[in-house]
Amino acid sequence: MSQAMGQARDHAAADVSATVHTKSDRLAGGKSAIDFQTEPARYRHWKLAVDGDVATLTMDVDEKAGLFEGYDLKLNSYDLGVDIELADAIERLRFEYPQARVLVLRSAKPRVFCAGANIRMLGGASHAHKVNFCKFTNETRNGIEDLSESSGVKSICAINGTAAGGGYELALATDYIMLGDDGTAAVSLPELPLLAVLPGTGGLTRVSDKRKVRRDLADVFCTTEEGVRGKRAVDWRLVDAVAPGSKFEDTVITRAKEFAAQSPRRASGPGIKLTPLKRTISPTGITYETVSAEFARAERIATITLQGPKASPPASADAMVKEGADLWPLKLARELDDAILHIRLNELDIAAIVFKSAGDPAQVLAYDQFLDANNDHWLAHEIRHLWKRVLKRVDLTSRSLVTLIEPGSCFAGTLAELPLASDRSYMLIGLHDGDNKPEAALALAEANFGAYPMSNGLTRLECRFLATPQSVETAKAARGKTLDAEEAQALGLITFALDDIDWDDEVRVFLEERASFSPDGLTGLEANLRFAGPETMETKIFARLTAWQNWIFQRPNAIGEDGALKRYGTGQKPVFDTKRV
Amino acid sequence: MSQAMGQARDHAAADVSATVHTKSDRLAGGKSAIDFQTEPARYRHWKLAVDGDVATLTMDVDEKAGLFEGYDLKLNSYDLGVDIELADAIERLRFEYPQARVLVLRSAKPRVFCAGANIRMLGGASHAHKVNFCKFTNETRNGIEDLSESSGVKSICAINGTAAGGGYELALATDYIMLGDDGTAAVSLPELPLLAVLPGTGGLTRVSDKRKVRRDLADVFCTTEEGVRGKRAVDWRLVDAVAPGSKFEDTVITRAKEFAAQSPRRASGPGIKLTPLKRTISPTGITYETVSAEFARAERIATITLQGPKASPPASADAMVKEGADLWPLKLARELDDAILHIRLNELDIAAIVFKSAGDPAQVLAYDQFLDANNDHWLAHEIRHLWKRVLKRVDLTSRSLVTLIEPGSCFAGTLAELPLASDRSYMLIGLHDGDNKPEAALALAEANFGAYPMSNGLTRLECRFLATPQSVETAKAARGKTLDAEEAQALGLITFALDDIDWDDEVRVFLEERASFSPDGLTGLEANLRFAGPETMETKIFARLTAWQNWIFQRPNAIGEDGALKRYGTGQKPVFDTKRV
Repeated sequence: MSQAMGQARDHAAADVSATVHTKSDRLAGGKSAIDFQTEPARYRHWKLAVDGDVATLTMDVDEKAGLFEGYDLKLNSYDLGVDIELADAIERLRFEYPQARVLVLRSAKPRVFCAGANIRMLGGASHAHKVNFCKFTNETRNGIEDLSESSGVKSICAINGTAAGGGYELALATDYIMLGDDGTAAVSLPELPLLAVLPGTGGLTRVSDKRKVRRDLADVFCTTEEGVRGKRAVDWRLVDAVAPGSKFEDTVITRAKEFAAQSPRRASGPGIKLTPLKRTISPTGITYETVSAEFARAERIATITLQGPKASPPASADAMVKEGADLWPLKLARELDDAILHIRLNELDIAAIVFKSAGDPAQVLAYDQFLDANNDHWLAHEIRHLWKRVLKRVDLTSRSLVTLIEPGSCFAGTLAELPLASDRSYMLIGLHDGDNKPEAALALAEANFGAYPMSNGLTRLECRFLATPQSVETAKAARGKTLDAEEAQALGLITFALDDIDWDDEVRVFLEERASFSPDGLTGLEANLRFAGPETMETKIFARLTAWQNWIFQRPNAIGEDGALKRYGTGQKPVFDTKRV
Repeated sequence: MSQAMGQARDHAAADVSATVHTKSDRLAGGKSAIDFQTEPARYRHWKLAVDGDVATLTMDVDEKAGLFEGYDLKLNSYDLGVDIELADAIERLRFEYPQARVLVLRSAKPRVFCAGANIRMLGGASHAHKVNFCKFTNETRNGIEDLSESSGVKSICAINGTAAGGGYELALATDYIMLGDDGTAAVSLPELPLLAVLPGTGGLTRVSDKRKVRRDLADVFCTTEEGVRGKRAVDWRLVDAVAPGSKFEDTVITRAKEFAAQSPRRASGPGIKLTPLKRTISPTGITYETVSAEFARAERIATITLQGPKASPPASADAMVKEGADLWPLKLARELDDAILHIRLNELDIAAIVFKSAGDPAQVLAYDQFLDANNDHWLAHEIRHLWKRVLKRVDLTSRSLVTLIEPGSCFAGTLAELPLASDRSYMLIGLHDGDNKPEAALALAEANFGAYPMSNGLTRLECRFLATPQSVETAKAARGKTLDAEEAQALGLITFALDDIDWDDEVRVFLEERASFSPDGLTGLEANLRFAGPETMETKIFARLTAWQNWIFQRPNAIGEDGALKRYGTGQKPVFDTKRV
């Protein structure tokens, strides 16, 4: 099947998915689901250009190409559709352009860098969409930072006009912010004074914890609609440098060359093509090549089944590059990521995600060993970091997560992170009656002990065993061993080991119970229990900042008929309940 | 004036305060304001007994003595009134019973330790009250931990029945949890399954980060209405020990004696009496001896003015003990604490708290030096830690905080923490026209460099200068020096230095602007900007957990007509919006 045909099928299929978007937030173009797959040829809002070791991402939002009906994306304001392209471009820089060593973010619009999230979009969006939109944009910003930290591609934000709200938050995700000094260029976080909400994409945390702006100056900055410009922006640490219009372009080029020269990126040689995912979307699920997602809507359960590798790992690094996007761990990561994002934004009624797998644990371990052996190769390195990000996305998904480890499954090495990321795991002792698949096995590998840190900086095993660090060592000693249910339970790796007699009832009761609980209560509970231990800028953004923003997004002062989000642009001032809470 | 007369005046006066409690949450007994002052003779819910070095706090809630109308405090369930007594008792242990070296918490009710926060109270309370109730109970639990950490009074919770929800959260604040093993004694956090909310008093964070319960076991525990008992409670780290009924009392006594013997408490008797605060409550404010709070309700501003010491510090430690509760820094801390709590719970429309002071900075510094010189004395030690807690309470107050440093003020040493705790500070250059008070001065002392850590473990100066730790050193070199506005600004200690021409307008515009912003947006903004840097269990409780709980407390699934809090006890099941957000 040709790529174009695949895409056509893909798009047609997307339209039969269950309609979850209501009149108040109707998707544009008659679409019934948000699609996270795109590619540069289809971008409406960004241009990705790579010149030698300098990559440039130019924001040029098509105001008529909003994801939902009812608003224009004026002044480089953005919605989720714009951010899906940005996230795609960042991913392609890793895999398709290993030669890129610096990224310059800029705007094609005169006198405006980016006006932030579109306000009419926010005003019309459901609470669930606003929350998930913010989560995704936060993940994309973290991805820009990870591109620098893990892949060695330092980023520069060249602000040639106004960077307001989400526009400045995008800049904050880069390593170096340059601001034009022409009297109009300014950075601002006007969310509170204008809209009665918080900067929702990490802005407050990056101001306080990344740029370490003094708290009282941050208070002034965040309550000043027009923002800060020129030398004061540098003095207050809001930007790294200002340059007058005449010298701006030269300075950007000079800095880009400097950063490229300093880049530790080890990559060489041609990249691989991130070819479109092959998937079939039906009313009850999505079938990919290595992943399937099945939606039991009455029970409010999504079952995601991961397929183990069909063959041994490639014979060499060159063979790995040749397989490219078809390489099993890369394909699986991309498909899993797409499935999770689809559920998050399109399947809002799903209460729990059940992870299952099918395959040979030994083959999965063989792939982990292959990636370890080739850890110095840029592609193996990028695949590990992609998995790291996908697993973080799983951790941050507001659905109950459960892994069922049954006969014939392959939760080994990298895939063993899924039961560890789950709120609970159930593992079968022995076999199901009348089944002759190999007995359920769990196996750890080197990858479980450092390759995939959570947002809080700990491995999932370190976080799990916060009380008993020696349990991490005991588990480490069992690397490579296929553990049966009782062994896995003795090591503390699973929640429950059950035999066939109890299995069906226990699992059913658990899933029914989960569907019966308050969805909001579960979101709060899981967000607290999943992240024991230290906090980082990332967890601060996803917990502290996000939770406050979610609260504010529920308050009448923001979203009520007289609230600021509803009244913005009407000429009427918002009316606030003056109680401080 | 006799103590009894003072109290009578006090109570009568409390009734003329502005009525802020509405029909849905009417205070019992015709009261119009919540009073945070109490004393053991007036307790309705607790008994404090000190026998040698063992203090026992026995919970025996008077179900007819609820703070609000409309509910009975059955089964040792509590409301804010119960917690006000608990907080008072903990404070008295520090000051009145320096000989106490261990605290045993227990219940006088048969087969029940504590049923947690009263559900009918929660169902009828305003959002603002629920949030502030949770904040105060969290502060009280942190106070129990601080009693152990800072004063060396280790605590034991003796659970002789069921400890549910807030009952178990109270236990979690102690150092050692003992559970009876009689088939009925159990610990549980049933908030999510029963009420669709989170344990709101630190429960989740203490389960994950203090007791380090494995996350999947914590998930099972927090979704199991009936909780966990016996050996499983020990195995899961939920309690420290179980003992059968026959041995329970003996074991409690044995443990208490052990802990008392290990206590590092340096105190030696006798304590001082925490005499009732002398205050006059009027419709527009409260006047204490060293503090006044003035409410400009139209402008939504509370001005808290702190009076510096009238005389030099006592000549000796013995003289300090003799002054007792009249000692200036102790009296000031208690009065400031009461004023802040009053505003939090009774003056919900106040947008900003303005801190002012009047007095001689040199006298304030002299008191700081006196406390430093007597740091080994139990009373000086307790006063420092009281100030630490009061300043944390200021940090955690959801109102905009601003300090005005004007001629005649005394923001020196301990009092200099107030501008540092404020969202902004303004300092006058020179004098106000026609005024002949001494020029505005700010002075730092040793106390600003370690005595008063914030919840995040940093001093306010370390947190302020996160980007430039050398600025802390520069400030340290200026200890003892009275700094004028321009010097203070050069050191980065204040936000704005203004002369008399600009002062009135700038301050007025700022306060008007603050009152015009969304109260919710400000709460979220300030909660994020005030706590740059590391997170601790305490900040996790006040930021991550609290913010999620606040969100859930706004969601229809909890508080709507069909929500769980409204339907609890009606026999009708709640109806949930099934969207996961």
